[in-house]
Amino acid sequence: MKKYTRETAVRLQHTDAAGILFFANLIVLAHEVYEQFMEEIGFGFDGIIRTGEYLIPIVHAEADYKRMLRTGERAIIDMHVSRIGRSSYALDYTIRTPDGASVGKCRTVHVTTDVTTNRKIPLPENLRAALTPYLQES
Amino acid sequence: MKKYTRETAVRLQHTDAAGILFFANLIVLAHEVYEQFMEEIGFGFDGIIRTGEYLIPIVHAEADYKRMLRTGERAIIDMHVSRIGRSSYALDYTIRTPDGASVGKCRTVHVTTDVTTNRKIPLPENLRAALTPYLQES
Amino acid sequence: MKKYTRETAVRLQHTDAAGILFFANLIVLAHEVYEQFMEEIGFGFDGIIRTGEYLIPIVHAEADYKRMLRTGERAIIDMHVSRIGRSSYALDYTIRTPDGASVGKCRTVHVTTDVTTNRKIPLPENLRAALTPYLQES
Amino acid sequence: MKKYTRETAVRLQHTDAAGILFFANLIVLAHEVYEQFMEEIGFGFDGIIRTGEYLIPIVHAEADYKRMLRTGERAIIDMHVSRIGRSSYALDYTIRTPDGASVGKCRTVHVTTDVTTNRKIPLPENLRAALTPYLQES
Repeated sequence: MKKYTRETAVRLQHTDAAGILFFANLIVLAHEVYEQFMEEIGFGFDGIIRTGEYLIPIVHAEADYKRMLRTGERAIIDMHVSRIGRSSYALDYTIRTPDGASVGKCRTVHVTTDVTTNRKIPLPENLRAALTPYLQES
Repeated sequence: MKKYTRETAVRLQHTDAAGILFFANLIVLAHEVYEQFMEEIGFGFDGIIRTGEYLIPIVHAEADYKRMLRTGERAIIDMHVSRIGRSSYALDYTIRTPDGASVGKCRTVHVTTDVTTNRKIPLPENLRAALTPYLQES
Repeated sequence: MKKYTRETAVRLQHTDAAGILFFANLIVLAHEVYEQFMEEIGFGFDGIIRTGEYLIPIVHAEADYKRMLRTGERAIIDMHVSRIGRSSYALDYTIRTPDGASVGKCRTVHVTTDVTTNRKIPLPENLRAALTPYLQES
Repeated sequence: MKKYTRETAVRLQHTDAAGILFFANLIVLAHEVYEQFMEEIGFGFDGIIRTGEYLIPIVHAEADYKRMLRTGERAIIDMHVSRIGRSSYALDYTIRTPDGASVGKCRTVHVTTDVTTNRKIPLPENLRAALTPYLQES
Protein backbone atom coordinates (compact mmCIF):
# COMPACT_ATOMS: atom_id res chain seq x y z
CA MET A 1 0.00 0.00 0.00
CA LYS A 2 1.30 3.39 -0.97
CA LYS A 3 0.54 6.59 0.78
CA TYR A 4 0.94 10.03 -0.72
CA THR A 5 2.81 12.57 1.39
CA ARG A 6 3.28 16.28 0.86
CA GLU A 7 4.57 19.09 3.02
CA THR A 8 2.74 22.37 3.06
CA ALA A 9 2.97 25.61 5.03
CA VAL A 10 0.39 27.72 6.79
CA ARG A 11 0.24 31.14 5.17
CA LEU A 12 -1.16 34.33 6.65
CA GLN A 13 -4.26 34.02 4.49
CA HIS A 14 -5.02 30.67 6.15
CA THR A 15 -4.99 32.10 9.67
CA ASP A 16 -7.59 34.14 11.51
CA ALA A 17 -7.71 36.74 14.24
CA ALA A 18 -7.36 34.07 16.92
CA GLY A 19 -3.78 33.79 15.66
CA ILE A 20 -4.03 30.29 14.24
CA LEU A 21 -5.11 28.32 11.19
CA PHE A 22 -8.81 28.97 10.49
CA PHE A 23 -10.31 25.51 11.03
CA ALA A 24 -11.85 25.08 7.58
CA ASN A 25 -8.47 25.71 5.99
CA LEU A 26 -7.08 22.43 7.33
CA ILE A 27 -9.58 20.74 5.02
CA VAL A 28 -8.58 23.13 2.22
CA LEU A 29 -4.89 22.24 2.68
CA ALA A 30 -5.73 18.52 2.73
CA HIS A 31 -7.72 18.98 -0.47
CA GLU A 32 -4.72 20.63 -2.14
CA VAL A 33 -2.77 17.44 -1.46
CA TYR A 34 -5.59 15.44 -3.03
CA GLU A 35 -5.41 17.69 -6.11
CA GLN A 36 -1.67 17.15 -6.49
CA PHE A 37 -2.23 13.41 -6.05
CA MET A 38 -4.88 13.36 -8.78
CA GLU A 39 -2.54 15.19 -11.16
CA GLU A 40 0.21 12.69 -10.50
CA ILE A 41 -2.01 9.66 -11.12
CA GLY A 42 -3.27 11.24 -14.35
CA PHE A 43 -6.62 12.65 -13.23
CA GLY A 44 -5.93 16.38 -12.93
CA PHE A 45 -9.07 18.34 -12.14
CA ASP A 46 -8.74 20.67 -15.09
CA GLY A 47 -8.82 17.73 -17.46
CA ILE A 48 -11.78 16.12 -15.69
CA ILE A 49 -13.77 19.36 -15.72
CA ARG A 50 -12.99 20.23 -19.33
CA THR A 51 -13.48 16.70 -20.67
CA GLY A 52 -16.95 16.92 -19.19
CA GLU A 53 -17.65 13.20 -18.97
CA TYR A 54 -18.08 13.02 -15.23
CA LEU A 55 -17.51 15.02 -12.07
CA ILE A 56 -16.38 13.80 -8.66
CA PRO A 57 -18.24 15.93 -6.10
CA ILE A 58 -17.52 15.54 -2.43
CA VAL A 59 -20.50 14.19 -0.50
CA HIS A 60 -18.91 14.15 2.95
CA ALA A 61 -15.98 15.89 4.61
CA GLU A 62 -14.82 15.88 8.21
CA ALA A 63 -11.88 16.97 10.29
CA ASP A 64 -10.60 16.50 13.82
CA TYR A 65 -8.24 19.03 15.32
CA LYS A 66 -5.54 18.22 17.86
CA ARG A 67 -3.09 21.08 17.69
CA MET A 68 -3.26 24.60 16.37
CA LEU A 69 -0.94 25.80 13.62
CA ARG A 70 0.51 29.30 13.45
CA THR A 71 1.56 31.40 10.45
CA GLY A 72 4.60 29.93 8.75
CA GLU A 73 4.37 26.54 10.43
CA ARG A 74 4.95 23.52 8.26
CA ALA A 75 2.56 20.60 8.15
CA ILE A 76 3.10 17.19 6.64
CA ILE A 77 0.01 15.60 5.19
CA ASP A 78 -0.18 11.82 4.62
CA MET A 79 -3.05 10.75 2.42
CA HIS A 80 -4.30 7.32 1.49
CA VAL A 81 -7.43 5.81 -0.01
CA SER A 82 -9.50 4.29 2.80
CA ARG A 83 -12.35 2.84 0.76
CA ILE A 84 -13.24 2.22 -2.87
CA GLY A 85 -16.90 1.49 -3.58
CA ARG A 86 -18.96 1.02 -6.71
CA SER A 87 -19.28 4.73 -7.44
CA SER A 88 -17.36 6.37 -4.63
CA TYR A 89 -14.11 6.45 -2.73
CA ALA A 90 -12.93 7.83 0.59
CA LEU A 91 -9.64 9.50 1.39
CA ASP A 92 -8.05 9.75 4.81
CA TYR A 93 -5.50 12.39 5.69
CA THR A 94 -3.36 12.66 8.79
CA ILE A 95 -1.61 15.93 9.43
CA ARG A 96 1.47 16.34 11.61
CA THR A 97 4.20 18.87 12.24
CA PRO A 98 7.71 18.15 10.95
CA ASP A 99 8.70 17.04 14.48
CA GLY A 100 5.87 14.53 14.54
CA ALA A 101 3.19 16.20 16.67
CA SER A 102 -0.33 15.28 15.59
CA VAL A 103 -2.18 18.24 14.11
CA GLY A 104 -5.36 16.45 13.16
CA LYS A 105 -6.97 14.31 10.55
CA CYS A 106 -9.47 14.68 7.73
CA ARG A 107 -11.67 12.45 5.64
CA THR A 108 -13.35 13.23 2.35
CA VAL A 109 -15.81 11.03 0.42
CA HIS A 110 -16.08 11.43 -3.34
CA VAL A 111 -18.77 10.22 -5.73
CA THR A 112 -18.55 10.01 -9.49
CA THR A 113 -21.56 11.59 -11.17
CA ASP A 114 -22.84 12.07 -14.68
CA VAL A 115 -22.33 15.68 -15.73
CA THR A 116 -25.75 16.02 -17.36
CA THR A 117 -28.00 14.00 -15.04
CA ASN A 118 -26.07 14.66 -11.79
CA ARG A 119 -26.67 10.99 -10.94
CA LYS A 120 -24.10 8.58 -9.54
CA ILE A 121 -22.22 6.56 -12.12
CA PRO A 122 -19.84 3.64 -11.56
CA LEU A 123 -16.27 4.67 -10.87
CA PRO A 124 -14.45 4.70 -14.24
CA GLU A 125 -12.21 1.63 -14.40
CA ASN A 126 -9.04 3.61 -15.10
CA LEU A 127 -9.68 5.82 -12.07
CA ARG A 128 -10.34 2.75 -9.90
CA ALA A 129 -7.09 1.21 -11.11
CA ALA A 130 -5.14 4.39 -10.39
CA LEU A 131 -6.54 4.68 -6.85
CA THR A 132 -6.13 1.03 -5.84
CA PRO A 133 -2.37 1.11 -5.08
CA TYR A 134 -3.14 3.70 -2.39
CA LEU A 135 -5.97 1.67 -0.80
CA GLN A 136 -5.65 0.70 2.83
CA GLU A 137 -8.96 -0.10 4.45
CA SER A 138 -8.95 0.72 8.14
CA MET B 1 -36.11 25.44 21.80
CA LYS B 2 -34.99 28.23 19.54
CA LYS B 3 -33.13 27.84 16.33
CA TYR B 4 -31.13 30.55 14.66
CA THR B 5 -31.81 31.07 10.96
CA ARG B 6 -30.01 33.22 8.45
CA GLU B 7 -30.08 33.52 4.69
CA THR B 8 -26.86 33.79 2.79
CA ALA B 9 -25.81 33.79 -0.86
CA VAL B 10 -23.13 31.96 -2.76
CA ARG B 11 -20.67 34.43 -4.19
CA LEU B 12 -18.23 33.88 -7.05
CA GLN B 13 -15.35 33.64 -4.59
CA HIS B 14 -17.06 30.64 -2.96
CA THR B 15 -17.31 28.68 -6.20
CA ASP B 16 -14.67 26.74 -8.10
CA ALA B 17 -13.94 25.75 -11.67
CA ALA B 18 -16.44 22.89 -11.46
CA GLY B 19 -19.02 25.68 -11.50
CA ILE B 20 -20.36 25.14 -8.00
CA LEU B 21 -19.72 25.97 -4.36
CA PHE B 22 -16.27 24.71 -3.34
CA PHE B 23 -17.15 22.08 -0.73
CA ALA B 24 -15.19 23.58 2.17
CA ASN B 25 -17.05 26.86 1.73
CA LEU B 26 -20.32 25.31 2.90
CA ILE B 27 -18.63 24.92 6.28
CA VAL B 28 -17.31 28.50 6.00
CA LEU B 29 -20.82 29.83 5.32
CA ALA B 30 -22.21 27.81 8.23
CA HIS B 31 -19.50 29.24 10.45
CA GLU B 32 -20.46 32.78 9.43
CA VAL B 33 -23.95 32.07 10.77
CA TYR B 34 -22.39 30.85 14.02
CA GLU B 35 -20.41 34.10 14.24
CA GLN B 36 -23.53 36.21 13.81
CA PHE B 37 -25.27 34.07 16.41
CA MET B 38 -22.45 34.57 18.90
CA GLU B 39 -22.60 38.34 18.38
CA GLU B 40 -26.32 38.36 19.00
CA ILE B 41 -26.08 36.36 22.24
CA GLY B 42 -23.29 38.65 23.45
CA PHE B 43 -20.20 36.58 22.69
CA GLY B 44 -18.79 38.25 19.59
CA PHE B 45 -15.47 36.75 18.56
CA ASP B 46 -13.60 40.04 18.59
CA GLY B 47 -14.49 40.52 22.24
CA ILE B 48 -13.55 36.96 23.16
CA ILE B 49 -10.20 37.19 21.37
CA ARG B 50 -9.31 40.62 22.78
CA THR B 51 -10.48 39.88 26.31
CA GLY B 52 -8.05 36.99 26.22
CA GLU B 53 -9.60 34.92 28.98
CA TYR B 54 -10.44 31.88 26.94
CA LEU B 55 -10.69 30.72 23.35
CA ILE B 56 -13.21 28.35 21.79
CA PRO B 57 -11.31 26.33 19.17
CA ILE B 58 -13.15 23.89 16.95
CA VAL B 59 -12.10 20.28 17.59
CA HIS B 60 -14.35 18.64 15.03
CA ALA B 61 -16.17 19.73 11.90
CA GLU B 62 -18.10 17.76 9.34
CA ALA B 63 -20.40 18.29 6.41
CA ASP B 64 -22.68 16.23 4.19
CA TYR B 65 -23.55 17.46 0.73
CA LYS B 66 -26.84 16.75 -1.02
CA ARG B 67 -27.15 19.40 -3.69
CA MET B 68 -24.70 21.70 -5.40
CA LEU B 69 -25.08 25.47 -5.23
CA ARG B 70 -24.25 27.81 -8.08
CA THR B 71 -23.06 31.42 -8.05
CA GLY B 72 -25.76 33.74 -6.80
CA GLU B 73 -27.93 31.01 -5.30
CA ARG B 74 -29.43 31.67 -1.90
CA ALA B 75 -29.13 29.26 0.97
CA ILE B 76 -31.01 29.27 4.25
CA ILE B 77 -29.04 27.98 7.19
CA ASP B 78 -30.80 26.77 10.36
CA MET B 79 -28.51 26.35 13.33
CA HIS B 80 -29.17 24.94 16.76
CA VAL B 81 -27.10 23.70 19.69
CA SER B 82 -27.12 19.90 19.63
CA ARG B 83 -25.11 19.23 22.78
CA ILE B 84 -23.70 21.12 25.74
CA GLY B 85 -21.04 19.34 27.76
CA ARG B 86 -18.78 20.30 30.63
CA SER B 87 -16.29 22.17 28.47
CA SER B 88 -17.70 21.85 24.98
CA TYR B 89 -20.75 22.28 22.81
CA ALA B 90 -21.86 21.06 19.41
CA LEU B 91 -23.74 22.97 16.75
CA ASP B 92 -25.83 21.45 13.99
CA TYR B 93 -26.63 23.29 10.78
CA THR B 94 -29.05 22.31 8.05
CA ILE B 95 -28.79 24.16 4.78
CA ARG B 96 -31.60 24.42 2.24
CA THR B 97 -32.51 26.48 -0.79
CA PRO B 98 -35.32 29.06 -0.46
CA ASP B 99 -37.72 26.57 -2.13
CA GLY B 100 -36.88 23.95 0.48
CA ALA B 101 -34.47 21.61 -1.30
CA SER B 102 -31.91 20.09 1.06
CA VAL B 103 -28.39 21.36 0.34
CA GLY B 104 -26.62 19.58 3.15
CA LYS B 105 -25.79 19.71 6.80
CA CYS B 106 -22.83 20.55 8.98
CA ARG B 107 -21.74 19.96 12.54
CA THR B 108 -19.04 21.74 14.50
CA VAL B 109 -17.77 20.90 17.99
CA HIS B 110 -16.28 23.66 20.13
CA VAL B 111 -14.14 23.44 23.25
CA THR B 112 -13.36 26.22 25.70
CA THR B 113 -9.66 26.43 26.44
CA ASP B 114 -7.40 28.49 28.63
CA VAL B 115 -5.50 31.01 26.51
CA THR B 116 -2.16 30.44 28.25
CA THR B 117 -2.16 26.68 28.91
CA ASN B 118 -4.25 25.66 25.88
CA ARG B 119 -6.05 23.21 28.19
CA LYS B 120 -9.79 22.62 28.35
CA ILE B 121 -11.64 24.70 30.89
CA PRO B 122 -15.27 24.41 31.98
CA LEU B 123 -17.71 26.29 29.79
CA PRO B 124 -18.15 29.75 31.36
CA GLU B 125 -21.56 29.86 33.04
CA ASN B 126 -22.74 32.92 31.13
CA LEU B 127 -21.90 31.26 27.82
CA ARG B 128 -23.69 28.07 28.90
CA ALA B 129 -26.74 30.10 29.86
CA ALA B 130 -26.71 31.94 26.52
CA LEU B 131 -26.47 28.71 24.51
CA THR B 132 -29.10 26.73 26.43
CA PRO B 133 -32.22 28.26 24.82
CA TYR B 134 -30.96 26.94 21.49
CA LEU B 135 -30.30 23.40 22.78
CA GLN B 136 -32.12 20.53 21.13
CA GLU B 137 -30.43 17.21 21.66
CA SER B 138 -31.05 14.85 18.78
CA MET C 1 -26.15 59.48 -10.90
CA LYS C 2 -26.96 56.52 -8.71
CA LYS C 3 -24.59 54.77 -6.45
CA TYR C 4 -25.05 51.27 -5.10
CA THR C 5 -24.54 50.84 -1.36
CA ARG C 6 -24.41 47.70 0.71
CA GLU C 7 -23.37 46.95 4.27
CA THR C 8 -21.24 43.93 4.97
CA ALA C 9 -19.44 42.50 8.00
CA VAL C 10 -15.94 41.22 8.52
CA ARG C 11 -16.07 37.54 9.45
CA LEU C 12 -13.37 35.50 11.17
CA GLN C 13 -12.49 33.83 7.86
CA HIS C 14 -11.62 37.27 6.43
CA THR C 15 -9.12 38.10 9.17
CA ASP C 16 -5.58 36.92 9.69
CA ALA C 17 -3.20 36.33 12.57
CA ALA C 18 -2.39 40.04 12.75
CA GLY C 19 -5.92 40.36 14.13
CA ILE C 20 -7.40 42.32 11.25
CA LEU C 21 -8.94 41.94 7.82
CA PHE C 22 -6.47 40.21 5.49
CA PHE C 23 -5.79 42.93 2.91
CA ALA C 24 -6.89 41.00 -0.17
CA ASN C 25 -10.27 40.37 1.43
CA LEU C 26 -11.21 44.05 1.19
CA ILE C 27 -11.16 43.55 -2.57
CA VAL C 28 -13.13 40.31 -2.14
CA LEU C 29 -15.80 42.10 -0.07
CA ALA C 30 -15.97 44.91 -2.66
CA HIS C 31 -16.39 42.31 -5.39
CA GLU C 32 -19.30 40.73 -3.49
CA VAL C 33 -21.06 44.10 -3.69
CA TYR C 34 -20.39 44.19 -7.44
CA GLU C 35 -21.94 40.73 -7.73
CA GLN C 36 -25.09 41.79 -5.91
CA PHE C 37 -25.23 44.88 -8.11
CA MET C 38 -24.97 42.82 -11.28
CA GLU C 39 -27.79 40.54 -10.10
CA GLU C 40 -30.00 43.53 -9.41
CA ILE C 41 -29.42 45.11 -12.83
CA GLY C 42 -30.12 41.77 -14.51
CA PHE C 43 -26.61 40.51 -15.20
CA GLY C 44 -26.10 37.86 -12.53
CA PHE C 45 -22.82 36.03 -12.96
CA ASP C 46 -24.39 32.58 -13.05
CA GLY C 47 -26.47 33.61 -16.04
CA ILE C 48 -23.52 35.20 -17.82
CA ILE C 49 -21.32 32.15 -17.27
CA ARG C 50 -23.97 29.63 -18.27
CA THR C 51 -25.23 31.58 -21.28
CA GLY C 52 -21.67 31.44 -22.51
CA GLU C 53 -21.84 34.37 -24.92
CA TYR C 54 -19.23 36.50 -23.25
CA LEU C 55 -17.23 36.81 -20.05
CA ILE C 56 -16.21 39.93 -18.16
CA PRO C 57 -12.75 39.25 -16.75
CA ILE C 58 -11.08 41.77 -14.50
CA VAL C 59 -7.95 43.26 -16.07
CA HIS C 60 -7.00 45.56 -13.21
CA ALA C 61 -7.74 45.76 -9.50
CA GLU C 62 -6.37 48.03 -6.83
CA ALA C 63 -7.02 48.98 -3.24
CA ASP C 64 -5.87 51.62 -0.76
CA TYR C 65 -6.12 50.95 2.94
CA LYS C 66 -6.74 53.61 5.56
CA ARG C 67 -8.02 51.81 8.60
CA MET C 68 -7.92 48.21 9.73
CA LEU C 69 -11.11 46.25 10.35
CA ARG C 70 -11.51 43.69 13.10
CA THR C 71 -13.70 40.58 13.31
CA GLY C 72 -17.37 41.47 13.44
CA GLU C 73 -16.91 45.08 12.35
CA ARG C 74 -19.38 46.42 9.84
CA ALA C 75 -18.33 48.15 6.65
CA ILE C 76 -20.44 50.16 4.27
CA ILE C 77 -19.40 49.92 0.65
CA ASP C 78 -20.47 52.56 -1.88
CA MET C 79 -19.94 51.56 -5.47
CA HIS C 80 -20.35 53.50 -8.68
CA VAL C 81 -19.29 53.17 -12.29
CA SER C 82 -16.33 55.49 -12.90
CA ARG C 83 -15.80 54.87 -16.62
CA ILE C 84 -17.54 53.14 -19.50
CA GLY C 85 -15.42 52.49 -22.58
CA ARG C 86 -15.95 50.66 -25.83
CA SER C 87 -15.32 47.22 -24.37
CA SER C 88 -14.64 47.91 -20.72
CA TYR C 89 -15.87 49.65 -17.60
CA ALA C 90 -14.35 50.65 -14.28
CA LEU C 91 -15.94 50.49 -10.85
CA ASP C 92 -14.93 52.56 -7.85
CA TYR C 93 -15.70 51.52 -4.30
CA THR C 94 -15.30 53.51 -1.12
CA ILE C 95 -15.47 51.64 2.14
CA ARG C 96 -16.31 53.24 5.49
CA THR C 97 -17.37 52.16 8.95
CA PRO C 98 -20.97 52.83 10.05
CA ASP C 99 -19.74 55.89 11.98
CA GLY C 100 -18.16 57.30 8.84
CA ALA C 101 -14.45 56.56 9.24
CA SER C 102 -12.71 55.89 5.94
CA VAL C 103 -11.58 52.27 5.63
CA GLY C 104 -10.20 52.46 2.12
CA LYS C 105 -11.12 52.36 -1.51
CA CYS C 106 -10.93 49.93 -4.40
CA ARG C 107 -11.11 50.06 -8.16
CA THR C 108 -11.72 47.22 -10.58
CA VAL C 109 -11.58 47.35 -14.39
CA HIS C 110 -13.64 44.88 -16.40
CA VAL C 111 -13.40 43.91 -20.05
CA THR C 112 -15.96 42.02 -22.10
CA THR C 113 -14.41 39.14 -24.02
CA ASP C 114 -15.55 36.52 -26.45
CA VAL C 115 -15.75 33.15 -24.70
CA THR C 116 -14.15 31.21 -27.54
CA THR C 117 -11.47 33.61 -28.81
CA ASN C 118 -10.73 35.33 -25.46
CA ARG C 119 -10.59 38.61 -27.41
CA LYS C 120 -12.16 41.88 -26.39
CA ILE C 121 -15.64 42.48 -27.75
CA PRO C 122 -17.72 45.66 -27.57
CA LEU C 123 -19.73 46.04 -24.39
CA PRO C 124 -23.18 44.54 -25.08
CA GLU C 125 -25.66 47.41 -25.46
CA ASN C 126 -28.02 46.14 -22.76
CA LEU C 127 -25.15 45.93 -20.27
CA ARG C 128 -24.00 49.44 -21.22
CA ALA C 129 -27.52 50.74 -20.70
CA ALA C 130 -27.81 49.03 -17.33
CA LEU C 131 -24.48 50.45 -16.11
CA THR C 132 -25.00 54.03 -17.33
CA PRO C 133 -27.31 55.24 -14.52
CA TYR C 134 -24.46 54.49 -12.09
CA LEU C 135 -21.82 56.35 -14.11
CA GLN C 136 -19.99 59.22 -12.48
CA GLU C 137 -16.70 60.03 -14.10
CA SER C 138 -14.21 61.41 -11.62
CA MET D 1 20.21 43.18 -7.40
CA LYS D 2 18.60 39.94 -6.37
CA LYS D 3 15.11 38.87 -7.17
CA TYR D 4 13.18 36.22 -5.32
CA THR D 5 11.48 33.59 -7.47
CA ARG D 6 9.05 30.88 -6.51
CA GLU D 7 6.82 28.54 -8.46
CA THR D 8 3.29 27.98 -7.32
CA ALA D 9 0.23 26.18 -8.65
CA VAL D 10 -3.38 27.19 -9.03
CA ARG D 11 -5.56 24.96 -6.89
CA LEU D 12 -9.30 24.37 -7.23
CA GLN D 13 -9.95 26.58 -4.21
CA HIS D 14 -8.33 29.50 -6.08
CA THR D 15 -10.62 29.21 -9.10
CA ASP D 16 -14.21 30.29 -9.56
CA ALA D 17 -17.22 29.27 -11.60
CA ALA D 18 -15.87 31.09 -14.66
CA GLY D 19 -13.32 28.25 -14.74
CA ILE D 20 -10.26 30.35 -13.97
CA LEU D 21 -8.27 31.86 -11.12
CA PHE D 22 -10.51 34.22 -9.11
CA PHE D 23 -8.81 37.56 -9.69
CA ALA D 24 -8.11 38.43 -6.05
CA ASN D 25 -6.27 35.14 -5.62
CA LEU D 26 -3.44 36.30 -7.88
CA ILE D 27 -2.68 38.86 -5.20
CA VAL D 28 -3.02 36.16 -2.54
CA LEU D 29 -0.54 33.91 -4.37
CA ALA D 30 1.88 36.84 -4.77
CA HIS D 31 1.56 37.54 -1.06
CA GLU D 32 2.45 33.93 -0.26
CA VAL D 33 5.72 34.46 -2.10
CA TYR D 34 6.31 37.60 -0.03
CA GLU D 35 5.71 35.56 3.14
CA GLN D 36 8.25 32.94 2.13
CA PHE D 37 10.69 35.71 1.27
CA MET D 38 10.25 37.33 4.67
CA GLU D 39 10.89 34.00 6.40
CA GLU D 40 14.07 33.49 4.42
CA ILE D 41 15.46 36.95 5.22
CA GLY D 42 14.65 36.43 8.91
CA PHE D 43 11.39 38.36 9.26
CA GLY D 44 8.78 35.60 9.39
CA PHE D 45 5.32 36.98 10.08
CA ASP D 46 4.68 34.79 13.10
CA GLY D 47 7.74 36.25 14.80
CA ILE D 48 6.80 39.82 13.90
CA ILE D 49 3.23 39.38 15.14
CA ARG D 50 4.22 37.63 18.37
CA THR D 51 7.13 39.93 19.17
CA GLY D 52 4.63 42.73 19.03
CA GLU D 53 7.05 45.59 18.40
CA TYR D 54 5.69 46.67 15.06
CA LEU D 55 3.38 45.54 12.31
CA ILE D 56 3.75 45.99 8.55
CA PRO D 57 0.25 46.59 7.18
CA ILE D 58 -0.32 46.89 3.47
CA VAL D 59 -1.52 50.36 2.46
CA HIS D 60 -1.83 49.74 -1.26
CA ALA D 61 -2.18 46.71 -3.50
CA GLU D 62 -2.78 46.42 -7.20
CA ALA D 63 -2.77 43.84 -9.95
CA ASP D 64 -2.92 43.73 -13.73
CA TYR D 65 -4.15 40.63 -15.47
CA LYS D 66 -2.96 39.46 -18.87
CA ARG D 67 -3.80 35.80 -19.07
CA MET D 68 -6.18 33.56 -17.18
CA LEU D 69 -4.92 30.57 -15.22
CA ARG D 70 -6.81 27.30 -14.95
CA THR D 71 -6.86 24.68 -12.17
CA GLY D 72 -3.53 22.93 -11.88
CA GLU D 73 -1.60 25.46 -13.95
CA ARG D 74 1.81 26.46 -12.68
CA ALA D 75 2.83 30.07 -12.25
CA ILE D 76 6.28 31.47 -11.64
CA ILE D 77 6.36 34.58 -9.51
CA ASP D 78 9.37 36.91 -9.57
CA MET D 79 9.43 39.42 -6.74
CA HIS D 80 11.75 42.32 -6.07
CA VAL D 81 11.77 45.40 -3.88
CA SER D 82 10.88 48.41 -6.04
CA ARG D 83 11.20 51.16 -3.44
CA ILE D 84 12.43 51.60 0.11
CA GLY D 85 11.29 54.77 1.90
CA ARG D 86 11.62 56.11 5.40
CA SER D 87 8.83 53.97 6.83
CA SER D 88 7.62 51.96 3.87
CA TYR D 89 8.65 49.73 1.02
CA ALA D 90 7.07 48.55 -2.22
CA LEU D 91 7.25 45.12 -3.78
CA ASP D 92 6.73 44.31 -7.44
CA TYR D 93 5.75 40.88 -8.66
CA THR D 94 5.62 39.59 -12.22
CA ILE D 95 3.79 36.35 -12.82
CA ARG D 96 4.36 34.09 -15.82
CA THR D 97 3.63 30.56 -16.89
CA PRO D 98 6.51 28.04 -17.02
CA ASP D 99 6.68 28.55 -20.81
CA GLY D 100 7.10 32.28 -20.34
CA ALA D 101 3.67 33.72 -21.10
CA SER D 102 2.88 36.82 -19.05
CA VAL D 103 0.10 36.19 -16.54
CA GLY D 104 0.13 39.59 -14.90
CA LYS D 105 1.82 41.70 -12.32
CA CYS D 106 1.16 42.91 -8.79
CA ARG D 107 2.44 45.62 -6.51
CA THR D 108 2.05 45.91 -2.76
CA VAL D 109 3.10 48.80 -0.52
CA HIS D 110 3.94 48.13 3.11
CA VAL D 111 4.26 50.53 6.02
CA THR D 112 5.82 49.85 9.40
CA THR D 113 3.56 50.93 12.25
CA ASP D 114 3.72 51.02 16.00
CA VAL D 115 1.53 48.25 17.44
CA THR D 116 0.01 50.43 20.15
CA THR D 117 -0.42 53.80 18.42
CA ASN D 118 -1.00 52.46 14.88
CA ARG D 119 1.23 55.30 13.65
CA LYS D 120 3.99 55.01 11.07
CA ILE D 121 7.45 54.34 12.47
CA PRO D 122 10.77 54.36 10.63
CA LEU D 123 11.64 51.09 8.96
CA PRO D 124 13.73 49.09 11.46
CA GLU D 125 17.36 49.17 10.32
CA ASN D 126 17.75 45.40 10.24
CA LEU D 127 14.67 45.08 8.03
CA ARG D 128 15.97 47.82 5.72
CA ALA D 129 19.30 46.04 5.47
CA ALA D 130 17.62 42.72 4.69
CA LEU D 131 15.45 44.25 1.95
CA THR D 132 18.16 46.31 0.24
CA PRO D 133 19.83 43.49 -1.74
CA TYR D 134 16.49 42.96 -3.51
CA LEU D 135 16.01 46.64 -4.37
CA GLN D 136 15.68 47.61 -8.00
CA GLU D 137 14.01 50.94 -8.53
CA SER D 138 12.13 51.05 -11.81
